[in-house]
Amino acid sequence: MSAINILGIDPGLRTTGFGVISKQGNKLSYIASGTISTLSEPDLPARLKLILASVSEIIATYQPDCAAIEKVFVNVNPQSTLLLGQARGAAICALVSADLSVAEYTALQVKQAVVGHGKAKKEQVQSMVQRLLSLSGMPGTDAADALGVAICHAHSMDSLALLQNVQSGLTNLTNQGLRMKRGRLVG
Amino acid sequence: MSAINILGIDPGLRTTGFGVISKQGNKLSYIASGTISTLSEPDLPARLKLILASVSEIIATYQPDCAAIEKVFVNVNPQSTLLLGQARGAAICALVSADLSVAEYTALQVKQAVVGHGKAKKEQVQSMVQRLLSLSGMPGTDAADALGVAICHAHSMDSLALLQNVQSGLTNLTNQGLRMKRGRLVG
Repeated sequence: MSAINILGIDPGLRTTGFGVISKQGNKLSYIASGTISTLSEPDLPARLKLILASVSEIIATYQPDCAAIEKVFVNVNPQSTLLLGQARGAAICALVSADLSVAEYTALQVKQAVVGHGKAKKEQVQSMVQRLLSLSGMPGTDAADALGVAICHAHSMDSLALLQNVQSGLTNLTNQGLRMKRGRLVG
Repeated sequence: MSAINILGIDPGLRTTGFGVISKQGNKLSYIASGTISTLSEPDLPARLKLILASVSEIIATYQPDCAAIEKVFVNVNPQSTLLLGQARGAAICALVSADLSVAEYTALQVKQAVVGHGKAKKEQVQSMVQRLLSLSGMPGTDAADALGVAICHAHSMDSLALLQNVQSGLTNLTNQGLRMKRGRLVG
């Protein structure tokens, strides 16, 4: 079974986290992670340009097969929501420009996938990401969130593959003359 | 004096308006306008990809020298604000990818530049854009808004040039031994 590289993104206008993992069967391994900081840029267009260029460079370097990005919170401050939306738009533009499929997960889904429940704190996510990927040190919060999104997507791919297996198994059975009735196989 | 082509953008997730005008001295002339509709796309990443690709194609076709984009309203619905932000981010990404400078104007500034006051209605903007650019027919609302942003930027360039003229004039005078004191030239 060949390895699949997954790029996870935790978008933000000031800091965008990224994480790349490799999935081979059930085995996940760490490839890279880090943060893109736009604090040095003078205005919004320059910040978006930096996010676009940096994510494009990450894609060129690590050649992911697919991508996943966190669905962002709607902030209490509408102006912040608008800024965050634009940063997320720039990150997605880099992904779709490279013809990557883009899956989207909420913070709740990421926490459930990584820690096992949706109320996990930041440190718990960092700690579990460290354990799941056998990292020597604890990743920063933005990088951990991005790696968490990638892990969430890896699990989701497994669920999808399982579902497809079940479906193709059922198709085989029905091809043999059996059929499903009220959740049971009947001849 | 050589002509400067200005691309104006009125961003939106469903419909993004664009307008290209040419400015030669004080004379403005119409080059192109239209709308990008993303309604046929299945999801958010696909919509952002279409906006990015379409704006990039418009830039390749009309070769603008600079760009201007409308500052968007913060909507009462935070989810809409987030979606609009992402669409605006995609449009800005196309502009900065082509190394265009990006000016930003509020709807109020555009109305003041085009109609003369900030409380103008949509139809007044359309009608004034038609007159200012000597169009045979009335442009659609999104295209009119985009052409309005471009016109607003053209006026703003004139104000900036005037200011620079005044400043260089003052520098000449001060080089001749005169100086400004309480707004008056003194020897």
